[in-house]
Amino acid sequence: MVLVEAEHRTAQERKAAAAVIAALAPRYGNRLSTSPSMREQHANTTTWVDNQPPDAVVFPQTTDEVQDVVRLCAAHRVPVIAFGAGTSLEGQVNAPRGGICLDFRDMNRVLAVHAEDLDCVVEPGITRKALNEYLRDRGVFFPIDPGADASLGGMAATRCSGTNAVRYGTMKDNVLALKVVLASGEVMSTARRAKKSAAGYDLTRLMVGAEGTLGIITELTLRLSGIPEAISSGVCPFPSVDAACNATILAIQSGIPVARIELLDALQVRACNQYSKLDLPEVPMLFLEFHGTDSSVAEQSERFGEIAKELGGGPFDWATRAEDRSRLWQARHDAYWAARALRPGAQALASDVCVPISRLAECVSDTQRDVAASRLFAPIVGHVGDGNFHLSLMVDLADGGEVTRAKALLERLVERALAMDGTCTGEHGVGQGKMKYLLAEHGAPALGAMRAIKQALDPLDIMNPGKIFSL
Amino acid sequence: MVLVEAEHRTAQERKAAAAVIAALAPRYGNRLSTSPSMREQHANTTTWVDNQPPDAVVFPQTTDEVQDVVRLCAAHRVPVIAFGAGTSLEGQVNAPRGGICLDFRDMNRVLAVHAEDLDCVVEPGITRKALNEYLRDRGVFFPIDPGADASLGGMAATRCSGTNAVRYGTMKDNVLALKVVLASGEVMSTARRAKKSAAGYDLTRLMVGAEGTLGIITELTLRLSGIPEAISSGVCPFPSVDAACNATILAIQSGIPVARIELLDALQVRACNQYSKLDLPEVPMLFLEFHGTDSSVAEQSERFGEIAKELGGGPFDWATRAEDRSRLWQARHDAYWAARALRPGAQALASDVCVPISRLAECVSDTQRDVAASRLFAPIVGHVGDGNFHLSLMVDLADGGEVTRAKALLERLVERALAMDGTCTGEHGVGQGKMKYLLAEHGAPALGAMRAIKQALDPLDIMNPGKIFSL
Repeated sequence: MVLVEAEHRTAQERKAAAAVIAALAPRYGNRLSTSPSMREQHANTTTWVDNQPPDAVVFPQTTDEVQDVVRLCAAHRVPVIAFGAGTSLEGQVNAPRGGICLDFRDMNRVLAVHAEDLDCVVEPGITRKALNEYLRDRGVFFPIDPGADASLGGMAATRCSGTNAVRYGTMKDNVLALKVVLASGEVMSTARRAKKSAAGYDLTRLMVGAEGTLGIITELTLRLSGIPEAISSGVCPFPSVDAACNATILAIQSGIPVARIELLDALQVRACNQYSKLDLPEVPMLFLEFHGTDSSVAEQSERFGEIAKELGGGPFDWATRAEDRSRLWQARHDAYWAARALRPGAQALASDVCVPISRLAECVSDTQRDVAASRLFAPIVGHVGDGNFHLSLMVDLADGGEVTRAKALLERLVERALAMDGTCTGEHGVGQGKMKYLLAEHGAPALGAMRAIKQALDPLDIMNPGKIFSL
Repeated sequence: MVLVEAEHRTAQERKAAAAVIAALAPRYGNRLSTSPSMREQHANTTTWVDNQPPDAVVFPQTTDEVQDVVRLCAAHRVPVIAFGAGTSLEGQVNAPRGGICLDFRDMNRVLAVHAEDLDCVVEPGITRKALNEYLRDRGVFFPIDPGADASLGGMAATRCSGTNAVRYGTMKDNVLALKVVLASGEVMSTARRAKKSAAGYDLTRLMVGAEGTLGIITELTLRLSGIPEAISSGVCPFPSVDAACNATILAIQSGIPVARIELLDALQVRACNQYSKLDLPEVPMLFLEFHGTDSSVAEQSERFGEIAKELGGGPFDWATRAEDRSRLWQARHDAYWAARALRPGAQALASDVCVPISRLAECVSDTQRDVAASRLFAPIVGHVGDGNFHLSLMVDLADGGEVTRAKALLERLVERALAMDGTCTGEHGVGQGKMKYLLAEHGAPALGAMRAIKQALDPLDIMNPGKIFSL
């Protein structure tokens, strides 16, 4: 990863940032840092997107402090970038125009749990694992699981989803309300704690997925779910990706309320076997999980087993012991590291697309053929219940030809998804990496509407500028 | 209902409307009407909100025609109001500044059904019953059920929900994408058919619930659900509203995936007994429905029965015969007419609020006491799984004192809901009737953000002006 100072920044922009830092320094003491290593850690570090560090990193402790920083930045037209756990994949935390990074490390409290209402109020810096640890004894949990131990603020900002989304929805479905510091410095509450409302524009959903370009989230009211009485997990081999996808479609159509249904292609299974010491047959595989009562998870598992058999898959091996479950899902979560271990020294370029589920098998198979024809190495994992899959391209960045072929492959991946009425990203977000696809995906009128909204709420373009689209 | 011509319209506004009508008349022939009765039918007719008719009603047949009308209206700064089935309750279809009403009667086609993807594409004029009739043979259905046979366009515009929302969500959860004619005349597609996306701002959710103030919906891609293998319905009496609400909380917390759970207070049960020839005990009552497999609905019903018993309710009488179910839910849907029949000649003033479910019992009981103290007559029905309930105030409009007391009661109802961190409307929307509560509910920064978005997308304020908020 190379530290890239934004060469195109004007002297005035640098001077403005310096003025903001000079004003903040005495107030924030050691909660403000301008050290190169700190700045670099707060820019993109997870894929091949350049590392574009902010001018300074501030660790706020209250919404008032965030307001304070935003107002000062607005006065000097200096960018403000929110930072959670730094696990975003498309350059969302980069600072192409410099500016102040707000790291929410210290704003990580659970402010309230309303178990009867199945909701809680948290600060944005708490991670999903820490939250679920906190909630465990209360019989409730927060279901969204992107794999990485991301912060809730970041998960909301990128409209994250993950393995449980097929049953529990994405962040758009699990955020009830947000407190947001707007570019004006005003603090906006997007909604109240009622489970639903028809009172005006849906500002909550507008902020979820806006990647910090419309405001900075400083508080989240989250919808929780009851911890299921019984959970069963299992793995099921299939003769082909096609058969695995068709089993998924049938399971969902027949109303099995599957909690997770994850595809691993043969290459990814091989990677997981090696990395996580499993001994699965190296063929396309579904990892599944069912939530419910004892009898309902048994029924769901049996029904899924029948569907798998019909499609030439199986046997469906299901385990309900917590330790077996954990081992399985740990392997699934480690798929990225497993893929990296298969090709040591390579950089992982993770990309995701999402298509209508009826086109998924075709999209995955076409992509596998494209990978082979491009002489590249790219295991596939997919949240197949949602029609969403990930390509982990393992690229030797020192090999220019390989990098060129990889970039071309990713372009074709998005074109393929769009041609199937899909989206250029199901869950990673746009950041910088996918900006170029938005026009093709949405068309000029929708992109124009997004720009008009951005200009209306952030006329000075200080909120995470240069992400999603350029003004 | 009194036809109220908007007295405050300027001569210029009237002239502009006349110019638009003159231009449209030759193009639309008998698909344009300026007759007083037609105009009056296309304004608010369902509650005590005034009837404020548009200047003309046009029946478009294509998105191009809608574009055509909108462009012409924009050129003359004349309001455009979309009209579906006319079942909105807060004056959403009124034309306080006159203008052109677009009645989507003729745009009622199903354009595509993708059963494998569990989605379909429809025009906005189709009603939910017509859609489900069309879908029935394909094993799928559209679950949102507001009672009235509303149009899908109107349901999306008001962020409608209804009896199935506790399990299937509201319109915000069941619209995948929209085609929208913007105030500029451009046609925007908000999203593609992928089940989820993280590609940019959530324009779909912004349009859902905007009540036509940001654009006119001309096509909807809807999420469908598989028709459950088994359905069981039943009724369960409770000693108090409190016990019924607590049973609801327990059922949801314990993870019973209840499809419908509806409260009727004792007065509403009496009304339903008389109107729908039932013989239920006249005490607070829950109507329930469970969806799943045979064994899962049996298990859900049994578990609910145990919960009800624990709380002093029951016996829970559950019937799975389709005709018994239909009779029960028909009675629930006819609750409004049943309430009217209890006090012939009275006008029904339907209002809804929604609170966190833990506060629901208190909110309902306080409201019942308030109704009694106000010497008013108002049965209550509630989508209690969502914390949402309806007050059907039956008011003699000729009795000025009664009207005054009713208005004051409705004010207190909203204040009570807001004080409990609830919303002034869970599902009816804002329209004209609830505009005055938005500031108290959302605060100035959120209302300011809504206004900024409105101004950005509709700078001339021609899209259903005077609804949700005034500019």
